Amino acid sequence: MTCAWSLECSSCASTRSADGLPGVCDCGQPLLVRYPAPPSPEAKSVLRERPWTMWRYREWLPLGAEESPVTLGEGGTPLLPVARIAAKHGFRDLRVKEEGTNPTGSFKARGLAAAVTRAVAAGARRLVVPTAGNAGVALAAYGARAGVATRVYASAITPATILSQIRSFGADLVLVDGHIGDCGRAARAYAAEAGAVDVSTLREPYRIEGKKTLGLEIAEQLGWTLPDAIVYPTGGGTGLIGMWKAFEELAAAGWVLGPLPRMYSVQSTGCAPVVQAFAAGAERCTPWPEPRTVASGLCVPGPLGDRLMLRALRESGGGAVAVSDAQLSGASRDLQTLEGIDACPEGGATLAGLLELEARGAIRRDDQVVLFNTGAGWLYRS
Amino acid sequence: MTCAWSLECSSCASTRSADGLPGVCDCGQPLLVRYPAPPSPEAKSVLRERPWTMWRYREWLPLGAEESPVTLGEGGTPLLPVARIAAKHGFRDLRVKEEGTNPTGSFKARGLAAAVTRAVAAGARRLVVPTAGNAGVALAAYGARAGVATRVYASAITPATILSQIRSFGADLVLVDGHIGDCGRAARAYAAEAGAVDVSTLREPYRIEGKKTLGLEIAEQLGWTLPDAIVYPTGGGTGLIGMWKAFEELAAAGWVLGPLPRMYSVQSTGCAPVVQAFAAGAERCTPWPEPRTVASGLCVPGPLGDRLMLRALRESGGGAVAVSDAQLSGASRDLQTLEGIDACPEGGATLAGLLELEARGAIRRDDQVVLFNTGAGWLYRS
Repeated sequence: MTCAWSLECSSCASTRSADGLPGVCDCGQPLLVRYPAPPSPEAKSVLRERPWTMWRYREWLPLGAEESPVTLGEGGTPLLPVARIAAKHGFRDLRVKEEGTNPTGSFKARGLAAAVTRAVAAGARRLVVPTAGNAGVALAAYGARAGVATRVYASAITPATILSQIRSFGADLVLVDGHIGDCGRAARAYAAEAGAVDVSTLREPYRIEGKKTLGLEIAEQLGWTLPDAIVYPTGGGTGLIGMWKAFEELAAAGWVLGPLPRMYSVQSTGCAPVVQAFAAGAERCTPWPEPRTVASGLCVPGPLGDRLMLRALRESGGGAVAVSDAQLSGASRDLQTLEGIDACPEGGATLAGLLELEARGAIRRDDQVVLFNTGAGWLYRS
Repeated sequence: MTCAWSLECSSCASTRSADGLPGVCDCGQPLLVRYPAPPSPEAKSVLRERPWTMWRYREWLPLGAEESPVTLGEGGTPLLPVARIAAKHGFRDLRVKEEGTNPTGSFKARGLAAAVTRAVAAGARRLVVPTAGNAGVALAAYGARAGVATRVYASAITPATILSQIRSFGADLVLVDGHIGDCGRAARAYAAEAGAVDVSTLREPYRIEGKKTLGLEIAEQLGWTLPDAIVYPTGGGTGLIGMWKAFEELAAAGWVLGPLPRMYSVQSTGCAPVVQAFAAGAERCTPWPEPRTVASGLCVPGPLGDRLMLRALRESGGGAVAVSDAQLSGASRDLQTLEGIDACPEGGATLAGLLELEARGAIRRDDQVVLFNTGAGWLYRS
């Protein structure tokens, strides 16, 4: 199949065909998918005939008209009002995008479904990923679904349940004495040596497209309007970058009107390179020395997507905030016991971050705000 | 609110109003919900405007026109083709209803969402349930969502992850040295003593209604047709009973045509009271002495819904089969590694049961068959 879309470098703006197995640009920076034309507003009406998975938005995604994706039914997750927590803190309209009900228990299902679909379509038989946890579970499952071999590099301190899930799908799991940056180096070495396709965050262009469906779904769930603010836990940043790409594409296509949401990134005080760079007015992050947090998904000391994240935060008029492990754990507990949501530490971080942002005056109590529970809490228990 | 529906005893056929907090009939048998009229076929067209949760079928459910349910977005789970497993065993059209992506990780979310909605609407402030595992997680979460107190009685040998999930939502968890029958006695004693509402399987009429949405969803996902056969793992049996009620109601309403599916129950050789009673031509089960299986959801030695289950199996032209722990564990592993589905032991049991049923000639390879993964595999790992 010849791809109808093309690829554009997010940094040097050079373009290339999407055929084959694209990685990063020759300049080393991430490639973004560009489509020949946006879906027409009339295409909205076909949506209601389709099941609630992320592939209902197939015209927005890198999928040929005759192609079937590698899918476990990912997407279509609830956008839950949290009235009890809103009342506790005086907010008017607070919702949680509950990504823990995805296959494999997290938002990573979206990106990996898209990446595995394209890699397998281009002939890949062996895939590899470094992981802070959830991406490894997702790759293992989608690799099994596609019938291809997978290898996962994870830090030895990754929660035991996550490691057990990765193994359960038959992936070849390698534990690394280090953080995700170290896992990434090991994954790239293995890819070069074994001819495996590296589906790391932003080292191929399709995980962003899968994550874009977070933004498309929120828009549809709010009746093709967008919230005032989105508070998102940020590690590698694909979700933040993907949602911002979705909002820009929706606006360009005329599917939504009015201002786009202010995007806020929440990190841990134990690993906050984006918060630091945002505050310093920098375009890139300085790698965080000795990253440490219970929210393993936030333990990404030097994200490849730093420029794209910082651009989205600034263009949207948003910001970035760090919270302590105590704050994010307490907020997770509130989501669990006051709302019945199986919040992960990163999900708790968005609630803790919201309270910080409100205290600073960045978010108002009468804003319509969407928080994210990016994965299920059970993945972190044992 | 006055309920528009009424209740009918599944055994003595006496009827009563649904107002208040109905339990079982005076004769001790389960009550079934009866609606004044079936939804019209035209009501199909409003469905597509609604989100993919079980409440899209609200006209089929015990919910007043102005009421909002207690919900975490349950239902709308994928019906996944499993082509690789079908090919391995020579089946033409094999699908898995993947209930592990529900909130709380299992099909129990559906029944408890309905039961908690009605109990809270009737004024309950304290709920109790005995559990083989997953129902306890669901009650804990939906109780938190509704803002009411919950107590859960579980066997001390329940998988550790399940117990940890129950606690995470703030439920009061009591471990019992015994099986679910012993937990049930403790729950009833507590309900009597503390004024708590007992939402045990079939001891109130609404969990069946929630489970009914399994059948409604399968019908909609197959374009308002029904499969030839359904293979379902059977413990308490609410899902089997609920689906059969759904199919009968769909046929009566004219929403589906043609024969209803043959319903097959799968149990463990370590606890197979329904299989035994079915083979013996009995109307009731004989309680299974010393029940024992890794599939904790199948460890129900004396189900209250035995008559209703046996009736559904016989009326549908189906049957019942027992598989060993080795068979069901191997089949779970196949679902995990060949299809990327996080199968629980009970989910594996349906695949193992299918192979037994095919070997006996009860199910043919060219039948369209739906298997059930009733919950996520992670709940059983630690």
